[in-house]
Amino acid sequence: MSVGEAIAAREQVIGSEPGKARIVYRTSGELAGPMLVKLTARKHEIGVDEPAGIGGGNDYASPVEYALAALASCQAITYRLWATKLGIALDGLEIAVEGDLDLHGLFGLDDAVRPGFSAIRIDVTPIGPEPARFAELADAVDAHCPVLDLITTPTPVERRLCGEGGPAGGS
Amino acid sequence: MSVGEAIAAREQVIGSEPGKARIVYRTSGELAGPMLVKLTARKHEIGVDEPAGIGGGNDYASPVEYALAALASCQAITYRLWATKLGIALDGLEIAVEGDLDLHGLFGLDDAVRPGFSAIRIDVTPIGPEPARFAELADAVDAHCPVLDLITTPTPVERRLCGEGGPAGGS
Repeated sequence: MSVGEAIAAREQVIGSEPGKARIVYRTSGELAGPMLVKLTARKHEIGVDEPAGIGGGNDYASPVEYALAALASCQAITYRLWATKLGIALDGLEIAVEGDLDLHGLFGLDDAVRPGFSAIRIDVTPIGPEPARFAELADAVDAHCPVLDLITTPTPVERRLCGEGGPAGGS
Repeated sequence: MSVGEAIAAREQVIGSEPGKARIVYRTSGELAGPMLVKLTARKHEIGVDEPAGIGGGNDYASPVEYALAALASCQAITYRLWATKLGIALDGLEIAVEGDLDLHGLFGLDDAVRPGFSAIRIDVTPIGPEPARFAELADAVDAHCPVLDLITTPTPVERRLCGEGGPAGGS
């Protein structure tokens, strides 16, 4: 099934039963070393670690690098999806993302510094025979990219402390 | 070097030369199939794909799953870091993250629906001999976790269109 056929089929399902568009995505796992984290999402394993300079084993990319990778890949895939929807030929796409982060935030050394990225830059290079339409494509992507939206717009997060430390536990 | 020694050494460097706390993180790569994305971050390779139902090959987790994995792992590692800083014993940690997403946003089928997650939930279970201190630990983590901050607070993103479709290109 081509991307175009998959998209048309999915949109038909959503059109007839809107509830099927609402999906709960999940990942879970554990701290498996000093800073090593082993997670799964469906059948997929995801390893995360920190460089040695912060006490990790450097076996995998770090959490903030995965956050940038989520953005880069979501952009790339949303280009494919919207190029298909808009009928714009896309032969390939190169992408580079970088983000500025000040460790004063993570370490609690300066309360005026946020823990996360202060700025993120995306360089995207679509490849295809209709470059004159790429600005239209990029605007459509940026209006519909899930991870770009996650990063630019606040998302409510509820954190529950489970186990003995949680509300039902105690000493 | 233990996590405690690594953190102390890093904090000493930052204290004497604050500019060394400012880090630019990067990832880059390309669309390598219908929806397959191949990225690298330093020496680490990151593959991303979509399930078959949206036209992908399901070879890897999807972008939004990586976004949740970035959050889950950043939480877990920040627990390790702040448990060390606060002198709270942490023998292990289990974490589960889930997020609600409505595909009407990605597909542009309803402009009132945001493309990203409408809500995210974190269930975290720290394991150790001092559960009475885990609430204090959790509050310190949530105040300093980079990816939690990325998701709950807007981050400015600049997107540049490069190649022939960019400002210097065109037909």
